[in-house]
Order: sequence, then C-alpha cells, then structure tokens
Amino acid sequence: MRFRLECVECIVRQARRTAERCTPDPARRLAIIKETMRRLCADPLDRSPAEHSLAAYAAAAELSGVADPFRESKAEQNAIALAMYPALRERVARSPDPLRTAAKLAVAGNVVDLGVGLAFDVREEVEKVLGGTLAVDHFARFKEELASARTLLFLCDNCGEIVFDRLFIETVRAHFPALRVFAAVKGAPIINDATLDDAAAVGLAAAAEVVSTGCACIGAPRAAIAPRLVELLDSCDLVIAKGQGNFETAGGPPRPMYFLLKAKCPCIAEELGVRFGDVVFMRRPAPAPEA
Amino acid sequence: MRFRLECVECIVRQARRTAERCTPDPARRLAIIKETMRRLCADPLDRSPAEHSLAAYAAAAELSGVADPFRESKAEQNAIALAMYPALRERVARSPDPLRTAAKLAVAGNVVDLGVGLAFDVREEVEKVLGGTLAVDHFARFKEELASARTLLFLCDNCGEIVFDRLFIETVRAHFPALRVFAAVKGAPIINDATLDDAAAVGLAAAAEVVSTGCACIGAPRAAIAPRLVELLDSCDLVIAKGQGNFETAGGPPRPMYFLLKAKCPCIAEELGVRFGDVVFMRRPAPAPEA
Repeated sequence: MRFRLECVECIVRQARRTAERCTPDPARRLAIIKETMRRLCADPLDRSPAEHSLAAYAAAAELSGVADPFRESKAEQNAIALAMYPALRERVARSPDPLRTAAKLAVAGNVVDLGVGLAFDVREEVEKVLGGTLAVDHFARFKEELASARTLLFLCDNCGEIVFDRLFIETVRAHFPALRVFAAVKGAPIINDATLDDAAAVGLAAAAEVVSTGCACIGAPRAAIAPRLVELLDSCDLVIAKGQGNFETAGGPPRPMYFLLKAKCPCIAEELGVRFGDVVFMRRPAPAPEA
Repeated sequence: MRFRLECVECIVRQARRTAERCTPDPARRLAIIKETMRRLCADPLDRSPAEHSLAAYAAAAELSGVADPFRESKAEQNAIALAMYPALRERVARSPDPLRTAAKLAVAGNVVDLGVGLAFDVREEVEKVLGGTLAVDHFARFKEELASARTLLFLCDNCGEIVFDRLFIETVRAHFPALRVFAAVKGAPIINDATLDDAAAVGLAAAAEVVSTGCACIGAPRAAIAPRLVELLDSCDLVIAKGQGNFETAGGPPRPMYFLLKAKCPCIAEELGVRFGDVVFMRRPAPAPEA
C-alpha cells in the first residue's frame, strides 16, 4: 500500500502514544515527537505506511532507552487469549463448519492492536465476528485452494492474536494433514507484534514451523525481511497475511495472498473498499497467471 | 490554554487539510506538511495551540501561493447564515426569554468551523442547541453583570457565526440600550475566521463598533493583536470570547470573561471539564477582585 498524506499525522500520533508509554517526562515526550517529525521530513516517504511508522518507534526507543515499551501488554494479551483457548477450541470442534469458525476467530483476533490507538475487548470482538458477517468473504475459495496446496505461509501479526492463529492453523491441519505450514513472527520487538518469544509462550510451534522475519519490522517488507522468509513468500502455494502491517507491506509475490484483518484505519478501509471497523477474509489473486 | 502533545498531530492534520484546499499536487501537499513539521520542530511550543497552529496555515500559503483558501467557503457560510437571520430574529422576538434564546443561538453558531475538520450543519445545530441544555450555563450571572456594565467587548470567531453574533448583540442592546459594544474580527484572512470584509458583508456594524485584531491571528493572543484591542481587553467591563481560538489564547485580562463555544476538540473539552461536542456559556472570573 502506498503512503498517504494522512499517514503523516497518524505516525505523529503513534509517536506521541509510544512516548507516553516510554517516559513520564513531558519534555522527553515532546523530543520523541519532534525527532519522529524530523525523520519524516528527511524521508521521501515513498514506501509503505508501515515502514515509515518505524520512525516513531525508533525515535521513542532511542530517546527513552526503552526498547520494548509494550512488553507487559504483550504478556497480558497472550495470557488473556491463552485463557480463552480451551473454550474456543471446543467451540470450533462443535461448530457445523469448524474450519470456517476457526477462520473467523483468526480474523476476530486481529482486533488486538496497540499501534492504532483504539480501545478493544477481544471477548466482545469474538462474539461480534462469529455472530456477524465478513465484509469481504473469500473463505470458500480459500478452502478450495487449500485442498490442492502443499505449503502455506502464515504471516502473524499481534500478541494474543497468535493464539487465535494457532487454533486456525491447527484446524487447517486437522483437515489437510499433508499441508506444511510456516508461521512467521517478528525477529525483534515492535509495538505489540508477536516475536519468537511470544510464539514460544503460546505454543505456536505445536501448529506450525515457526520462522522469523529476522528484524523488528511492521508487516513483512521484502527489503527488510530475512532471505528465508523471502524464499517462503515466493515458494509457498498460499500466503495468509494477518493484520494491517502485512497488508500494507505486501509486495507482489507470485502466489495468491489472503488478507485476514479488521480495518482499524480509515485509509486501509478505503484501500480495501470496506467500512472502518469491518472485518475481511480477502483474496488477492496472484499478479500473473501460474504456469 | 497551554500547548499539549496531542496538539502536534492536530496541527499536522490541519496542514494536510489546508494543503488539500490549496493545491491538487500531492508533492506540494506533502511539502506543506513537511514544512509545517519543520516549523514545529524548530519551536519550543510554549505558546497556545492556536498560536502554533498558524505554522500550518503559513506554510500552506507560502508554498502554494494561495493566501485565502477558505474564501469561497466563508462567503457561502455568511450567505447561509444571512438567509437564516430574519427567521431567527423572529424566533428570538417571540421567545419567552429573547436574550437567552439569542445567547444560545450565538453558541450554536460556533459549530461553523473549518479548522477542526468536523462536518457540521448549522440548521441542525440551531435546533439541537435551542432544544437542549448548555453543559456549562452561566447565562444568569451574565445577565446580572450585563445590567451594571457600560462596555462589552465581543471577540468574534467564524464566518456565518458572526450573523448569530450580530443577532445576539442586537438583542443585548435592545435590553441594555446604554451599553457600548465592540466586536473584534480578524485583521487578515485566517482559516474561516471573520475579517473586516465579512463584518461588512453581514452588517455587523449595525450592532456593534467593529474593531480589528490587526493581524491574521487565531483567537486574540495579546502579543500579536493591535494595541487598540489590548486596550479594549483591559478596559471593557465584560468580555465575550467566541470559539476555541479565543479560549486558547485568552490571557488574564482584569475583567470577567465569558466563553461561548462548542467543544470541537477533545483537549479543549477536557480543559473545560465537559464532553466532546458539548456547548458552553462559561464565565471565567477576573483573576483579581475588582476595587
């Protein structure tokens, strides 16, 4: 997704909100906001919003010395979701269409996001998404494509949310035992995104082969991620990209890509052709027809 | 009002919205936003939000060559309000308490604001305010003080809104014919604030002695306004300050001041102790007791 003018004010707001987490000192908070603006001023801003928003988090870390300001929130989000896991697994198992229920739960889990600055209640969101409709619903096509896929790459997003992803991947693999699934998490802390530590904390390895982006990126920008992940992006039969960051940084891999997210930003909602707050399970076709 | 960290992102948003009015060129729009950020970075940001937000409007004017991007909107707002004027005057005359009705209309008129980026419908707002309650209502005290006042200074805010102000001032003077009323408008175009031209267009001089701030300020910051207005601020028995800008820049004049506004910004709502969107008729006592 291209950078939009509205993204500037959003990144300045992210700088302020992160500064508030990193230090109680108003002068230092202001310094973080100004440093973020200086970096934005010095940049042509021709990459994705997710890539440019790193300016805010880097400025906050450098000027406050706090490398992982979302650490406690992340642990709490994982704990809340893990506590929900047994009941959700039961619910998936008893539902008329377990795969679809697990897919909707994975979309619902995307409400857990500390970057966008919206309040959320993951339990409420689960009921809302399970009881409601997806604004874009390409699940049927996904199920079809899954039947002939040998490999699936799952680009994870937030803490807490990865528990829902684990349940979804487990359900996929129960239906398609031969499928090989890779789940990518961040190589270092960034906002409340899941890292290798979080993957371990929620037992993601029980469901998928966990790989790392190799860096503290937002989403999975091709220019920043580890060669192993580029290779998987280019070779896996299907790619699931969770959340806004992965949508924003999605390049043009040769495979069909599914975006599972809640539109928590009006610009992203516009790009997707949905309303702010909508949830989607959207297929983006492969740019060129496969041989 | 002191500058808050949230004001930075708000001013960057104002820069973007003004840039969108000034030029269709995305590169120039981005340049305006960046120039605004550069100015904010170079400033200690120790004055009121209204004063610092000038950075956005100055950058837009300088980089686009458009000195008055709100010109057409302002003419339209004056025309809409003028068309409403005869019926509103009738309504005031027929109401059980004409002075209070005119006061509430003056508050309702403050919904006309192109700086804050909220959509509004002045006809709807009139019905809402007349039918509703003021979140802070010091009107009774105002009426008392008016009885013994010889001079009243009215700090105007937006185009369109000044038609409501005219009606309020006319109603005040009908009740207190000996009162001398001054109405201050901007010395040059800034956002959709009323200037001397707008005062002339809506016949404000029929109600009050029109004076100018002497500059393109937002509100009436003491350091920027003309000596004549400073003198009036210090000598008038009562001061009415319309809108957020006048609230933000209100210094400590020795007279009681009344703030008539709609809280269109969450920070100002917090400062006033009201909810976002509330309307107030609030008295701020004189800092020192009068002799």
